[in-house]
Amino acid sequence: MRTSNYLLSTLKETPNDAEVVSHQLMLRAGMIRKLASGLYTWLPTGLRVLRKVENIVREEINNAGAVETLMPVVQPFELWEETGRSEKMGAELLRFTDRHDRPFVLSPTAEEVITSLVRNEVSSYKQLPLNLYQIQTKFRDERRPRFGVMRAREFSMMDAYSFDIDKEGLKQSYEAMHEAYCKAFDRMGLDYRPVLADTGAIGGSGSHEFHVLAESGEDLIAFSSESDYAANIEKAEALAPATELAAPTQEMTLVDTPNAKTIAELVEQFDLAIEKTVKTLFVKASDDVDADIIALIIRGDHELNEVKAENLKEVASPLEMATEEEIRALIGAGPGSLGPVGLELPFIVDRTVAVMSDFGAGANVDDKHYFGINWGRDVELGQIEDLRNVVEGDPSPCGQGTIQLKRGIEVGHIFQLGTNYSEKMNCGVLGPNGKNVILEMGCYGIGVSRVVASAIEQNHDENGIIWPAALAPFQVSIVPMNMAKSAEVKEAAEKLYADLTAAGIDVLFDDRKERPGVMFADHELIGIPHTIVIGNRSLENGEMEYKDRHAGTKEGVAVTDIVEFIKQKIA
Amino acid sequence: MRTSNYLLSTLKETPNDAEVVSHQLMLRAGMIRKLASGLYTWLPTGLRVLRKVENIVREEINNAGAVETLMPVVQPFELWEETGRSEKMGAELLRFTDRHDRPFVLSPTAEEVITSLVRNEVSSYKQLPLNLYQIQTKFRDERRPRFGVMRAREFSMMDAYSFDIDKEGLKQSYEAMHEAYCKAFDRMGLDYRPVLADTGAIGGSGSHEFHVLAESGEDLIAFSSESDYAANIEKAEALAPATELAAPTQEMTLVDTPNAKTIAELVEQFDLAIEKTVKTLFVKASDDVDADIIALIIRGDHELNEVKAENLKEVASPLEMATEEEIRALIGAGPGSLGPVGLELPFIVDRTVAVMSDFGAGANVDDKHYFGINWGRDVELGQIEDLRNVVEGDPSPCGQGTIQLKRGIEVGHIFQLGTNYSEKMNCGVLGPNGKNVILEMGCYGIGVSRVVASAIEQNHDENGIIWPAALAPFQVSIVPMNMAKSAEVKEAAEKLYADLTAAGIDVLFDDRKERPGVMFADHELIGIPHTIVIGNRSLENGEMEYKDRHAGTKEGVAVTDIVEFIKQKIA
Repeated sequence: MRTSNYLLSTLKETPNDAEVVSHQLMLRAGMIRKLASGLYTWLPTGLRVLRKVENIVREEINNAGAVETLMPVVQPFELWEETGRSEKMGAELLRFTDRHDRPFVLSPTAEEVITSLVRNEVSSYKQLPLNLYQIQTKFRDERRPRFGVMRAREFSMMDAYSFDIDKEGLKQSYEAMHEAYCKAFDRMGLDYRPVLADTGAIGGSGSHEFHVLAESGEDLIAFSSESDYAANIEKAEALAPATELAAPTQEMTLVDTPNAKTIAELVEQFDLAIEKTVKTLFVKASDDVDADIIALIIRGDHELNEVKAENLKEVASPLEMATEEEIRALIGAGPGSLGPVGLELPFIVDRTVAVMSDFGAGANVDDKHYFGINWGRDVELGQIEDLRNVVEGDPSPCGQGTIQLKRGIEVGHIFQLGTNYSEKMNCGVLGPNGKNVILEMGCYGIGVSRVVASAIEQNHDENGIIWPAALAPFQVSIVPMNMAKSAEVKEAAEKLYADLTAAGIDVLFDDRKERPGVMFADHELIGIPHTIVIGNRSLENGEMEYKDRHAGTKEGVAVTDIVEFIKQKIA
Repeated sequence: MRTSNYLLSTLKETPNDAEVVSHQLMLRAGMIRKLASGLYTWLPTGLRVLRKVENIVREEINNAGAVETLMPVVQPFELWEETGRSEKMGAELLRFTDRHDRPFVLSPTAEEVITSLVRNEVSSYKQLPLNLYQIQTKFRDERRPRFGVMRAREFSMMDAYSFDIDKEGLKQSYEAMHEAYCKAFDRMGLDYRPVLADTGAIGGSGSHEFHVLAESGEDLIAFSSESDYAANIEKAEALAPATELAAPTQEMTLVDTPNAKTIAELVEQFDLAIEKTVKTLFVKASDDVDADIIALIIRGDHELNEVKAENLKEVASPLEMATEEEIRALIGAGPGSLGPVGLELPFIVDRTVAVMSDFGAGANVDDKHYFGINWGRDVELGQIEDLRNVVEGDPSPCGQGTIQLKRGIEVGHIFQLGTNYSEKMNCGVLGPNGKNVILEMGCYGIGVSRVVASAIEQNHDENGIIWPAALAPFQVSIVPMNMAKSAEVKEAAEKLYADLTAAGIDVLFDDRKERPGVMFADHELIGIPHTIVIGNRSLENGEMEYKDRHAGTKEGVAVTDIVEFIKQKIA
């Protein structure tokens, strides 16, 4: 590609509205432009990278035995009613009516469409297993789109759906996709981890997320210091402490705490160890419970794990915290003064809290706390559950090592859905015994456009992007110095461009009438791995100058060797 | 690809609701499935063909110097207000609001988005010429989607947009795209014609359509019998007859015609030559005319060309015929009795009518006609225009030969838009003289999904599709006879599959436990060009059987030669 035919559109300044580095660099490198909130046009440089990601994903998913299809972006709303997801998805599911007032949605995913297809097209177990996928535009009407293509409304996603006759088949399909994901992300040169994940709103029995590790990640991943264990913090189990409940050493006392509305204030004003305090959180109860509100009790320095809470049968889903008004109406005290002693509500205690002794908590009276509380003596313990997020240093649930936390960007997700969708949509086949069998489904997604952003989060420096080899928009760039004034430079540059192109290499030939410094800055910003500088002086010595974006090094290479040199660099 | 991993989904019966052969065969061959009216899922076999079309288009458009981008499917409505197309497009432009009640549309095309991009990104004439394109999902909310993907609501389209500093540059960009289109359609093996076209609602100064010739085409194309001239009938000029106006030979007489409401009845009942009659059509006049209605007069056997009529400055656009009520209110007679004599309305006469003598027409009184009308003597001639469709045998407007008509399917369209959009959207750059120059735009579309259907219209027989080599979903299929019972057949089939795949050939290996007849029928239906049959008997003779889908021939080929034989067939 010659820059004279191209739309480079690089920017010197970092745009004000871009918070994360990938968004900043994608704008600066001329990869994307915002059309409207959460809607981006992929400029030529961005699209080249997007297509490379797409192609690697396609190849590995094909190798796993899946077959490509293409489903419409516009889907009939009634399919979403069949599975009940029309409600579950809420406002993220963009709905509209056509000219005949028939209701449709913009596809955020395609479980319903593919299940409807398979129930029509597949009639016998002999046609299974079957794994169908597409790489297609998706739309989610995010309330707050942000971070560029990382959380856009319209984006490119690979979504695959496997259909098996039994759970064993599903497990095999799932493992094949797990492996294909690893191969794809390996080829892309990403530092990623498959992690255990909650199945969330999409439902199902088993699930892994694939996270690219990066400071800017929205998710926290819990790793074991000793094993391969990794889980999204939503999912990572906080084990019950190995310690036993200690005997009381203090009397329970009622203390005036007028200026302590928070745990931090309580700890500071009364010289308490925070590990000797608890937080009592009121949430909406489920219909399983004979009360509207249920209390969840965690240690003062811990965080409630909302997913774990929501997954409890006693807690309403989605999780909803009680408002201050509701709490006051119920207890007569505010949220800063709640605690288990004397509480006339059902409550659930976190595993860690269940082995605490001599601890402090609100007295369910404004401006009063109890100190020296002990389970059994002062209040009955009752139901114990895992309610909190793991923290660094927790024992790993795998039994080996301790928990360490890192931030990750979710770029892929695989689910064992089981019969969740196939049952609702009556998707079955004639089994070996001649009876109808409801199919076992898996679903698999890769956020193709998000992969591009996450690769940048992991691979950049102060001068711009440093692409992994497989994702670079161009593998090589040519910078001719003063081409307009030197026939020798022009001739050498044109010949090199022709030779590299003929060798099947993606080359950016910078034929602009710009200073070399401008060209270098652009190529570094765009992140082209290999740059060849052609100048009169080095040509006189029979050399060109090679620059390595990743290593930051330069070296002279003989003109006669340059094509072979580059081929070896790329191989 | 092994059929055991694949979704073949062929149908024996022709679906009832498919009218044209391409729609029938795409359903039967398992290429597409209907999701809702005008919305189709591309099954694996269909998608393979779609991608081959896409890739050929991409390569040729790249070769023409255009650069690929990707714009969102969802576009802000306000951009369409800027150009006024929000009204012009009518109900085909699907509108909706997002969760924050902001208005958007589903992209039917992207002139507005690309012009808005270029006005922001390109600032100097030095960055021109620039041609940006995408291959992206489009949506048009057709009132009556039909013929499968031929007139679907959601479809894949290549749309390119060129930006030049002047008309000469635009012309060069346009010519380069014209050539790229020809190369692409040539490579696809299609019988097509570039034809002169009306620019229609999209506006602009010059335009060609690319039509694939097929009986089922919705468009009529006028060709010269002697030259390369070809034009959509909407656009093809009907020349003024070479004959002069003849002197009158009859008196004008008023005749009672109570049973002649149509030209056909008049001709039959009064033994008139139809070439001696005229039709008088009342249409809404434009603001340029001092009347609400204007009459258009064409010969009795000719058809009004609505596009030509609409393009007249005297006629309202879009063209609207007067209703019978309006005609009666104005004239006191019905539409079957109109004519120029005594008509108190402005009228325009077709070129052919202008040289008619001794002709018949309605008398503007119910059940009465004048016969023997002559211009000048009985009524003044007035304004003469080209109002009618050309018919076979007309002199070609190119000056050579006569007009022949064929039906065509429009698969591509190129426009010289000029400054139509760039002016409204203020898309200019700094010109060589330091002043702002509004850019000259071209736009270029190829209906990628429609190309697939049109190729089938041209290439099929009673057994199914006969793909042109470049578009076949698989180049070769392997039919093993009784593989389950013969280790030799299985081994030979597996080896051939491996060898052909290693040679980069797209192979369908039919490993189903089906009778050979079922496999042959499927492969013929799908249209795979080359089939190799492997059976015990021929293997014993060291041979495999080769079947040519296009020629319908069979021959034995030595096992040792088969890979080379197929390679040569494909090359």
